[in-house]
Amino acid sequence: MKSMREVLLYKLTWPEIREYLKENDIVLFPTGSTEQHGKHIAEDNDAFTALEISKRVAEKTGVLVAPVMPFGYSPHHMGFPGTITLSFDTLVNVYKEVCKSLMKHGFKKIVIMNGHGGNTNAIAEALRELKEETGMTVYSLMVFPTSTGFAAEVVKETIKTGGGHADEMETSVGLYLGQRILFERAEKGVPPESLSNFHRKYIRRVSRAVDFHEITVSGSLGDPTLASKEKGEKLVEAVVDEITEFIEELKKQ
Amino acid sequence: MKSMREVLLYKLTWPEIREYLKENDIVLFPTGSTEQHGKHIAEDNDAFTALEISKRVAEKTGVLVAPVMPFGYSPHHMGFPGTITLSFDTLVNVYKEVCKSLMKHGFKKIVIMNGHGGNTNAIAEALRELKEETGMTVYSLMVFPTSTGFAAEVVKETIKTGGGHADEMETSVGLYLGQRILFERAEKGVPPESLSNFHRKYIRRVSRAVDFHEITVSGSLGDPTLASKEKGEKLVEAVVDEITEFIEELKKQ
Amino acid sequence: MKSMREVLLYKLTWPEIREYLKENDIVLFPTGSTEQHGKHIAEDNDAFTALEISKRVAEKTGVLVAPVMPFGYSPHHMGFPGTITLSFDTLVNVYKEVCKSLMKHGFKKIVIMNGHGGNTNAIAEALRELKEETGMTVYSLMVFPTSTGFAAEVVKETIKTGGGHADEMETSVGLYLGQRILFERAEKGVPPESLSNFHRKYIRRVSRAVDFHEITVSGSLGDPTLASKEKGEKLVEAVVDEITEFIEELKKQ
Amino acid sequence: MKSMREVLLYKLTWPEIREYLKENDIVLFPTGSTEQHGKHIAEDNDAFTALEISKRVAEKTGVLVAPVMPFGYSPHHMGFPGTITLSFDTLVNVYKEVCKSLMKHGFKKIVIMNGHGGNTNAIAEALRELKEETGMTVYSLMVFPTSTGFAAEVVKETIKTGGGHADEMETSVGLYLGQRILFERAEKGVPPESLSNFHRKYIRRVSRAVDFHEITVSGSLGDPTLASKEKGEKLVEAVVDEITEFIEELKKQ
Amino acid sequence: MKSMREVLLYKLTWPEIREYLKENDIVLFPTGSTEQHGKHIAEDNDAFTALEISKRVAEKTGVLVAPVMPFGYSPHHMGFPGTITLSFDTLVNVYKEVCKSLMKHGFKKIVIMNGHGGNTNAIAEALRELKEETGMTVYSLMVFPTSTGFAAEVVKETIKTGGGHADEMETSVGLYLGQRILFERAEKGVPPESLSNFHRKYIRRVSRAVDFHEITVSGSLGDPTLASKEKGEKLVEAVVDEITEFIEELKKQ
Amino acid sequence: MKSMREVLLYKLTWPEIREYLKENDIVLFPTGSTEQHGKHIAEDNDAFTALEISKRVAEKTGVLVAPVMPFGYSPHHMGFPGTITLSFDTLVNVYKEVCKSLMKHGFKKIVIMNGHGGNTNAIAEALRELKEETGMTVYSLMVFPTSTGFAAEVVKETIKTGGGHADEMETSVGLYLGQRILFERAEKGVPPESLSNFHRKYIRRVSRAVDFHEITVSGSLGDPTLASKEKGEKLVEAVVDEITEFIEELKKQ
Repeated sequence: MKSMREVLLYKLTWPEIREYLKENDIVLFPTGSTEQHGKHIAEDNDAFTALEISKRVAEKTGVLVAPVMPFGYSPHHMGFPGTITLSFDTLVNVYKEVCKSLMKHGFKKIVIMNGHGGNTNAIAEALRELKEETGMTVYSLMVFPTSTGFAAEVVKETIKTGGGHADEMETSVGLYLGQRILFERAEKGVPPESLSNFHRKYIRRVSRAVDFHEITVSGSLGDPTLASKEKGEKLVEAVVDEITEFIEELKKQ
Repeated sequence: MKSMREVLLYKLTWPEIREYLKENDIVLFPTGSTEQHGKHIAEDNDAFTALEISKRVAEKTGVLVAPVMPFGYSPHHMGFPGTITLSFDTLVNVYKEVCKSLMKHGFKKIVIMNGHGGNTNAIAEALRELKEETGMTVYSLMVFPTSTGFAAEVVKETIKTGGGHADEMETSVGLYLGQRILFERAEKGVPPESLSNFHRKYIRRVSRAVDFHEITVSGSLGDPTLASKEKGEKLVEAVVDEITEFIEELKKQ
Repeated sequence: MKSMREVLLYKLTWPEIREYLKENDIVLFPTGSTEQHGKHIAEDNDAFTALEISKRVAEKTGVLVAPVMPFGYSPHHMGFPGTITLSFDTLVNVYKEVCKSLMKHGFKKIVIMNGHGGNTNAIAEALRELKEETGMTVYSLMVFPTSTGFAAEVVKETIKTGGGHADEMETSVGLYLGQRILFERAEKGVPPESLSNFHRKYIRRVSRAVDFHEITVSGSLGDPTLASKEKGEKLVEAVVDEITEFIEELKKQ
Repeated sequence: MKSMREVLLYKLTWPEIREYLKENDIVLFPTGSTEQHGKHIAEDNDAFTALEISKRVAEKTGVLVAPVMPFGYSPHHMGFPGTITLSFDTLVNVYKEVCKSLMKHGFKKIVIMNGHGGNTNAIAEALRELKEETGMTVYSLMVFPTSTGFAAEVVKETIKTGGGHADEMETSVGLYLGQRILFERAEKGVPPESLSNFHRKYIRRVSRAVDFHEITVSGSLGDPTLASKEKGEKLVEAVVDEITEFIEELKKQ
Repeated sequence: MKSMREVLLYKLTWPEIREYLKENDIVLFPTGSTEQHGKHIAEDNDAFTALEISKRVAEKTGVLVAPVMPFGYSPHHMGFPGTITLSFDTLVNVYKEVCKSLMKHGFKKIVIMNGHGGNTNAIAEALRELKEETGMTVYSLMVFPTSTGFAAEVVKETIKTGGGHADEMETSVGLYLGQRILFERAEKGVPPESLSNFHRKYIRRVSRAVDFHEITVSGSLGDPTLASKEKGEKLVEAVVDEITEFIEELKKQ
Repeated sequence: MKSMREVLLYKLTWPEIREYLKENDIVLFPTGSTEQHGKHIAEDNDAFTALEISKRVAEKTGVLVAPVMPFGYSPHHMGFPGTITLSFDTLVNVYKEVCKSLMKHGFKKIVIMNGHGGNTNAIAEALRELKEETGMTVYSLMVFPTSTGFAAEVVKETIKTGGGHADEMETSVGLYLGQRILFERAEKGVPPESLSNFHRKYIRRVSRAVDFHEITVSGSLGDPTLASKEKGEKLVEAVVDEITEFIEELKKQ
């Protein structure tokens, strides 16, 4: 296992990176956002988590970590102070241009370590365009545990309430990773009275552009008050182990 | 119930549309694609189905149907002859400009009736940008039955194999709607030998830009040979009924 | 002569298109618009006509027909309900991307079958950019008879009044092709009283962006009341014959 | 009549322009191109003529002339050395941004004095977008005499051969305006042997992106050897007089 | 003086930011790059320094610090491994969209704390466009000491050799701020033999797009071996004090 | 030395340019702006000077001069009547497309002869993108004498007051070159009373988008009343000689 400093690409000098590239071609690119995370979690949580998980995986696998992109696609959170959003096009271009820069130096396997669900479509479009334009396959994965992704088993075991934003799972992970969390201010996510029954009924079958302040008063979905550091530990360890396994297999490709 | 001709916006004259707008403000905008649909279904199936379902809903609800957009986002099908794809940006702009044109005339409730999963991200982006730029909410729904969308119950009852493209469900719907289907040529979707175990294993947890010719020899996913017109009838009737109910409730909003 | 179904590219499966491409390389791409056509013609008339003429030519020549693009460049008709317009840039991109998709599969001779004069500049720009970017020549022609284009002789013999929109010629063609026309509501195009003598005088010598509601009350130019199905038959047959001859010669190039 | 210097907006100081705007709101904006003009005319002829005609009209009417835009849309002339072309989008933006700058200072009636047929579509698009975005009508006219535009009568009387580029008319105008013309090198425009009969036949009925070196060896169309300074004098005087009349009427609008 | 955590906007929750905005409207936005910094300095130095200086100023003034933008405009460093560059347009858009997001929440005085000279033109363009589009003035300053900017006096006193990249000044600042520096590997910047005398001679009078690998072998300009932590301390303290004074005056505007 | 006419590329015919290209590959591309130049200088001064200096250099060196681009980047002068500005993106594209057109014909060494400081960033971006896209180096220089560029020595000897716009130096140059100058109206540049001490103090250390009408009443910076034709002669002769020397050396590269 390498020391922390050595896995951060941006803490190396160019001759050190040149050395790395002689025998390796993998790099992790963490991406997050700066947006409201309920009344209790710091706004950088998606970027923070993407970087923290990337570091842990990198320490176990010896691959490098690029700088975390702190801004993402968050127009739906703009109703809460502090949220910063890029446009879809700008974000796709940032992803593409960072990847193309890395490719130019010889990185052949780039894994986007994403901490924000709202970035998913922009990443998908970047991956498609990169493939068309360069012929190269870039990978992307969600660093948070989910019931259909990494650490799915542990999620099912430990997490009682869903949600998807500043919820039980996300708060638990943050407590374990040392994020700044004002846990006593955590509030269950409840929709404002203005949310119509009509929209409630069709929430999964009909799409529309939904702003978070239309569906939650606190900014949370789900129930973050059920979170704990212990749950977070199990989740993080599982995610890190499973992504580590993926990276090890990717090395052999 | 109105006759077919009257529900098609584009078969009306401008004074007739002006009349409609005096008391109504809903319009359905069907969107599809032109892309390979296995060895047995005509390439316009997503556009065809979007239009057919829209017509049926329109006849029951009396709302108008805009022209179907025949081209969608299909770069992943370009490995098969006949597929036509627009770029992501162009498609988002088409959706936005059609909706803005309709809004200018007084249509306040636009429902995009989508027949192609590959269009989903482009529609989502169009809906978001339309909301930011015009303040208006545009709705979108998938016209095909799915296990999480409209007609979910009937899907679970009638459809044995999943897939997601030119599969048992889609073929059944097409058989019932009168699409041109060479049923005897339908083939179960099997991946080419070149698909690695690595990619198989991480298919749900790691994203990459996948081309269909990399994962299916026939162009189908799932098993279309299990399709039948009877299954199609149940599915279509359920979808039409449930969307009709949605439109009736939308009228009251 | 082939049956109707076989000439529509989008009603074929991908193996059928692959077969076609082994011995052929021509495809017709019909383009129209959705816009007001006076008080008597359905709004899809340009798209409808482009498709109908394309089908007839295709049946005679055996070439394939791509899906009709139903939306065009119609900002000048937005004063009348129901008109839908794309921006110039979006439309150029649609034309280019459809043609590039077709080229990728091996279509070497694409003929844009245009039914809307307002699309002309966008098509010209698409043709130029396609030539610069791909080295390939794409052809475009107007499907309506005109005094300087196809069926010029028949136009001079049969049509008494000019106009250029929802006029005697266009109405005659529609009557013959089976378009939905409320003939009893047809009105001669007359300018609103607000049109100044100044603009009248310089109409051919000085260009400006003119909106149709500034120059015609009914939406028609010319005199559609002089139209007849018989005139339409002569015009359509002549246009189809002459374009067919062009396609036959194009085959030999 | 004012002296030459005073009519050129760009030869005035800002306080002088401020004075002009207190009682006037018209400005002429000449646009041309830099492109081959046969073996005998200098490459700036479209820009040169646009400026010369604008000056003469300005002297008679007292309106101001903006700087001439020397570059236009000339991809079809790139086969001949010296031709410079902008892209369509860039040119539309130049026209729009110059007009918007002028509007900001209070010019309400802008007349684009165009000397290059290849700019026509870009100007049309600029005029349309300016109207949509600012609500203001910008005018455009062709400074060369044509059989359907200004000085049509004189064209019919004096000019024997058509063409449209570096031809009898254009050479005559240039001889009178003092352009640098190597008249002894003028050559009748003849197509290279490679031009197929197929393309010859359909030249007016089927559009394609045509490069000038595909259709003329010398770069000229028509027969410039028939030109004379006397013809040029009649043409220029007529064009100037008729445009002057237009400007005088525009003042009253 | 506030504690470190409180000055980082992204380590606050949205209710805390809402509180801040009730009485304050200033935010610092640090921007840097990820690019080669000679053989001895970590590649994130411009981002690192921008953030470090911002934090120190923020602690003294109580204003908030937005997340640092880690990627900048660095095409001229792409010849050295590890450099990441965005395109000019993408970077301008990132700056504009971050500022517009902050404005939407009520931040009225944004100060871009820039650590990379290569970003200067993109920032200038963003500032101009933000002023045109929002009417608001955004400020920008260079966080490194320079002989014409902040800490000019101390630069003149302490720094013997110029350069402008990974040089004596930059290395000194990094040594004091705790950057990862492999000081023993620092090398004086010398141009490769391929640099022509022609280009040497006109370096200040004629502009061209210069790549760093064309003008320096080590990646440094100037002489970083003369750097010391003591020099860095003087420089950093002066820069922080002077920027602090600026922020205090800005508060009163 | 060649005669004037022969050095202007746009006054040649295409066969003449073809001849030139057989033995030469240098072209000067003058760029300026149309913008206020104080109360005394004509608004085209930057374009005028760029062209005049280019002609003089061309006559001495025998290289060709492309048409001058009369519009530049001048949003900061829009507060004064007559100023015309392009957007940054449009201007970059104009520069790139003109250069690419010239390259296509065989010009290998293009020198942008710039007369407007506000164009500098757009030119720098064009030069960078041209290098990335074509691999070719384009040069750019400022045609006005400056204390750090061409004619630096003469500037230091002859010019007493700085400024940077419509100042002592620029007015002197214009007087010598025969520009239209109303010298008796020249006024020293003084800021309006509204300029705050805050902004005065930080003018060199903090950037913001400054409009000229915020910092000067007359439009001038510096003191144009100290200008003279004699000073202009010395400055112009020195600039022309030094640029000529550069071009002669460039020929040998």
